[in-house]
Amino acid sequence: MPNREDTAAPRPAFDAERAARDFPILAEALPSGKRLVYLDNAATTQKPTAVLEASDAYYRHANANVHRAIHTLSQRATAQYEGARDKLAAFLNAGSRDEIVFTRGTTDGINLVAQCYARPRLAEGDEILVTELEHHSNIVPWQMIAETTGAKIVVVPLGDDGSVSLDDFKAKLSDRTKIAAFAHISNSLGTVLPIADMIAAAHQAGAVTLIDGAQAVAHARVDVQALDADFYVMSSHKLFGPTGFGALYGKRALLEAMPPYQGGGDMIERVSFSGTTYNEIPYKFEAGTPNIAGAAALGAAVDYVEQFDMAEVFAYEHALLARATEAMEAIDGLRIIGTAPGKAGIISFVMDGVHAHDIGTLLDESGIAIRTGHHCAMPVMERFEVPATARVSFALYNTQADVDALIDGLGSIQRIFG
Amino acid sequence: MPNREDTAAPRPAFDAERAARDFPILAEALPSGKRLVYLDNAATTQKPTAVLEASDAYYRHANANVHRAIHTLSQRATAQYEGARDKLAAFLNAGSRDEIVFTRGTTDGINLVAQCYARPRLAEGDEILVTELEHHSNIVPWQMIAETTGAKIVVVPLGDDGSVSLDDFKAKLSDRTKIAAFAHISNSLGTVLPIADMIAAAHQAGAVTLIDGAQAVAHARVDVQALDADFYVMSSHKLFGPTGFGALYGKRALLEAMPPYQGGGDMIERVSFSGTTYNEIPYKFEAGTPNIAGAAALGAAVDYVEQFDMAEVFAYEHALLARATEAMEAIDGLRIIGTAPGKAGIISFVMDGVHAHDIGTLLDESGIAIRTGHHCAMPVMERFEVPATARVSFALYNTQADVDALIDGLGSIQRIFG
Repeated sequence: MPNREDTAAPRPAFDAERAARDFPILAEALPSGKRLVYLDNAATTQKPTAVLEASDAYYRHANANVHRAIHTLSQRATAQYEGARDKLAAFLNAGSRDEIVFTRGTTDGINLVAQCYARPRLAEGDEILVTELEHHSNIVPWQMIAETTGAKIVVVPLGDDGSVSLDDFKAKLSDRTKIAAFAHISNSLGTVLPIADMIAAAHQAGAVTLIDGAQAVAHARVDVQALDADFYVMSSHKLFGPTGFGALYGKRALLEAMPPYQGGGDMIERVSFSGTTYNEIPYKFEAGTPNIAGAAALGAAVDYVEQFDMAEVFAYEHALLARATEAMEAIDGLRIIGTAPGKAGIISFVMDGVHAHDIGTLLDESGIAIRTGHHCAMPVMERFEVPATARVSFALYNTQADVDALIDGLGSIQRIFG
Repeated sequence: MPNREDTAAPRPAFDAERAARDFPILAEALPSGKRLVYLDNAATTQKPTAVLEASDAYYRHANANVHRAIHTLSQRATAQYEGARDKLAAFLNAGSRDEIVFTRGTTDGINLVAQCYARPRLAEGDEILVTELEHHSNIVPWQMIAETTGAKIVVVPLGDDGSVSLDDFKAKLSDRTKIAAFAHISNSLGTVLPIADMIAAAHQAGAVTLIDGAQAVAHARVDVQALDADFYVMSSHKLFGPTGFGALYGKRALLEAMPPYQGGGDMIERVSFSGTTYNEIPYKFEAGTPNIAGAAALGAAVDYVEQFDMAEVFAYEHALLARATEAMEAIDGLRIIGTAPGKAGIISFVMDGVHAHDIGTLLDESGIAIRTGHHCAMPVMERFEVPATARVSFALYNTQADVDALIDGLGSIQRIFG
């Protein structure tokens, strides 16, 4: 009997143009009359109609506070909120839905772990290991903990291509390392870190790991159990979901041993002035009325991406990246910063004689949205001795036509300033 | 020349039926075939079409990350986000837009003040003054601070009618009181606290004040400068805005003297591994990509309520409350808990021989949504020696027909169980 793969019809390659039609903003008529070419996906992704409709439908048919009432709307609201937790647990392959804590986003998740895991445990002499390419949100919370506890921040340096080598990472690990916190994918350079090996090495040294998955979830398959990640954080708005929402995955034993983050409703079991007892995970970490519509819409975003094979999406974006990179390298005076092998769809670059800000302004006149600045990663700018870069970042709805528009736009800039 | 008030046409009384037509969910067809009678507004309010459209339009025409880019969408997103801050500053009559910090909601705001104002300042012997009617969100964060700092929680007791007397409050104030934190309106009883006098008394004792305005902003005019409040917190979802968003008002000098709450993007001025400097207020307290759509939609909610005179809304809701109270008092075996003079539109009650939970279930069968339980105010339940109450709470779209439906429903329950 032939195996299933032999007999199944060949799966069609990923169809970005079809996906693009799901995102209404991509048909936006700009004041310039130009077509919107949205290449700022590392900052935030656009939302498919299904996500907009999920949020709208929640408010039109289900809006109520969750968990605490038995009326019809409240039951609907609770089902949508907790249903989103199930979807996200499956999406990240968490061992249990209880290991998914809803947050305000990646930054909130990192701060939660810093305050509730690290702050009570760290002391003078302990080390927090990060890499030089981290987003500020994976630096500043640890600096705040270091200041409070006397622990020290240790930094894994970057290679000249923006890569993080496993050997460099291992060289900085020791029995003083209590936490190793690092990005899955660099937001400023696109570097994909060897996180499975880094997690294993950290565990061998006895350290707990936190992975900043903000740039990964919309572009690669994430399996927190296969990775053996201790904490994994993500933002809804970078996964085609709404702003102001996200999730922290944490291993059950770690979450259960942590004190709550915020005090308030829902996170308690019983409150009295003589003493308060806390709720079970994940509710212990979800004080106050949650972002119910945010959860419903993130659930729709997860459903949306689950229709695709994330490996195909990564391959598609990688092909776009390769073609854009080749064309950009052919532009005189343009230098790409971050050229690690196996990069994700992010290109940071500078152009001789042109401020990054001006590149952004001139491309905007052609309807092309990119980001310029330090990308909340000032240490990366320092490492490569540039004040800022221009950054192009792809998502699954970007097409060859978008790359062509970008290259045309950059060519014009080169002709003006070159 | 006659003054303008003499010649102006008389302003029509508040028209709730007209307002109700702005809220699509109120026309929801329930599975029971009944009309939705939504009387759970203290838990969360419904959203007018203008709010739903603001959120949807944000994602369809403006979605981008804020503050950090110069492309068209990012400019639109920043304008909507910061525009909402202007609107809210005007709505609360803050002295400056910089005094409005966007949060995840009331609970988040209280925790921010507890962690950033109280935690660094309080020590053994210091006191935090709260009242017995506070929501858990205005108790637990202070218990967490008390545990960390050795400060003590002091509680102002309730009168038998659920009132907080200014004399009782003053009696608990002393030079040990560092913070007095209390509700503007009780979520479980509807009591309106004499907050202007309480703030003045607290100031005389040298204490800083935090007012939990969650239940007030949709029902009464709030002027933080006239009140001389030090901190005032609110939730968007209780002001006809989206879930997962809210604001903290804080006096400039207090906010400026506080360390940041969370670390991450936007809250920094400069990050390096040798040291990080923080941004100005309010950005110092807004780490990470904010809930931009939430702000845009809250801005629309503020615009929506600004069309009304809040004093008229309060008077209208008070008249509904009076009629409902009178009719409920005529029901055998029904007892209202919380009968303070000048109450807001909230009625907590119990019925002889019927569990609160069953009242909720039976009313739900008639399409009537109320809340049952402890309302995140367990000390209030303890004070009145009930395990739970049923709670009816009004908003500006509730009508006499809603009250009639409630009274009919309660009458049926009384006939079944009485």
